[in-house]
Amino acid sequence: MTDANIMKKNAGYYAAELVEDGMIVGLGTGSTVFFAMEKLSSMINGGLDIVGVPTSYQAMRRAREYGIPLGTLDDYPTLDLAIDGADQIDPKLRMIKGRGAAQTMEKCVCDAADSFIVVSDPSKLSDRLDAVVPVEVIPFACSTMMETVRKLGGVPVVREGVKKDGPVITDSGNFEIDCSFGIIKDPESLESRLNNIPGVLSCGLFTQYSSKTRVVIGKKNDVEVILLGD
Amino acid sequence: MTDANIMKKNAGYYAAELVEDGMIVGLGTGSTVFFAMEKLSSMINGGLDIVGVPTSYQAMRRAREYGIPLGTLDDYPTLDLAIDGADQIDPKLRMIKGRGAAQTMEKCVCDAADSFIVVSDPSKLSDRLDAVVPVEVIPFACSTMMETVRKLGGVPVVREGVKKDGPVITDSGNFEIDCSFGIIKDPESLESRLNNIPGVLSCGLFTQYSSKTRVVIGKKNDVEVILLGD
Repeated sequence: MTDANIMKKNAGYYAAELVEDGMIVGLGTGSTVFFAMEKLSSMINGGLDIVGVPTSYQAMRRAREYGIPLGTLDDYPTLDLAIDGADQIDPKLRMIKGRGAAQTMEKCVCDAADSFIVVSDPSKLSDRLDAVVPVEVIPFACSTMMETVRKLGGVPVVREGVKKDGPVITDSGNFEIDCSFGIIKDPESLESRLNNIPGVLSCGLFTQYSSKTRVVIGKKNDVEVILLGD
Repeated sequence: MTDANIMKKNAGYYAAELVEDGMIVGLGTGSTVFFAMEKLSSMINGGLDIVGVPTSYQAMRRAREYGIPLGTLDDYPTLDLAIDGADQIDPKLRMIKGRGAAQTMEKCVCDAADSFIVVSDPSKLSDRLDAVVPVEVIPFACSTMMETVRKLGGVPVVREGVKKDGPVITDSGNFEIDCSFGIIKDPESLESRLNNIPGVLSCGLFTQYSSKTRVVIGKKNDVEVILLGD
């Protein structure tokens, strides 16, 4: 196993061990979360009784393979915790997500959870948010939304697929626009402004969940857990 | 023709006569706009050269029937004007729309237009906004979004169809949730808060377009045109 995978596994396994009997658990999308699912699978085989709420088609498929009982937000509008990854995390535990084009459902699940466990590796920590911000938009509004992003100082690029000509289509049937803003000075304001652009379903900025967030950074031999104020 | 239809026709025809040669025109959804299309059709037969950008499948179909040349927001990210209806209009020309479940694309088109012509009848004018606010949400987030609306003091109801069991499905494949808030004291704030709920695509509050709005109220023998500050 590569060093990168060892770090992901350490983070994912640590997060899984935070799950207690009877919990409803949001299941994020991405390779580190899949290590958490792997560990949860063995805990379930040992008697742990939980229900997972997946954040994407991919998460749902993987969770089924691991034998994790599944439900939806209709079954469980409140979750005990959610485990997910992030693309970039700043010292105030504000985040950018959406490299997997799943940030809309990830945000729904995060929002519904009492506690948000972010599994990551040291490369995702940054003293500022300056990564690309994915924005999910209905195809009808793609051109006008990109024009509005330019007026906000951003550079929008329609995400294009591999193994598919043309734009990536999200699980909800929309486009994903990757928007570069350089250093984002006021992420809260930018998140709200992007969410208010007509035709936008969600953006990858997660600025409202810091107080319920624990970031689990996988390292080669252990993990580092970061809370707000650390 | 009923009095109601005479008023709608007067408003629609007046709006159509605001359209000039060469304009790109947003075409809203609803019976009053269809009168505008009827008039535009005869103007096109008389030589008027315009392109319409429809806000819904229904508007597109109707415009085709009337022989109006059509384009999209990809062809024309900026429109000269948009003609649309409204469910309720307050003295500051803030509006509630979405009874036709088309408010998302209507807002995209309104946002892209230099000028917004609202065709209506006297019954839509109100000294306050207290009508139901339609909110379009992805099915995944329906339950959690409704819980958040309750926390904001609203009463959410999933709009159910006729001629279809279960929820109405929008042209974008989502649910429409009708949310009652009583008298809405701060529509700007409520619009932004609703737009920021995870899974929400749009809400029917239109608070940001008053300065470019002209409201055309159809009456039995003429129209009344209302601008901000009148």
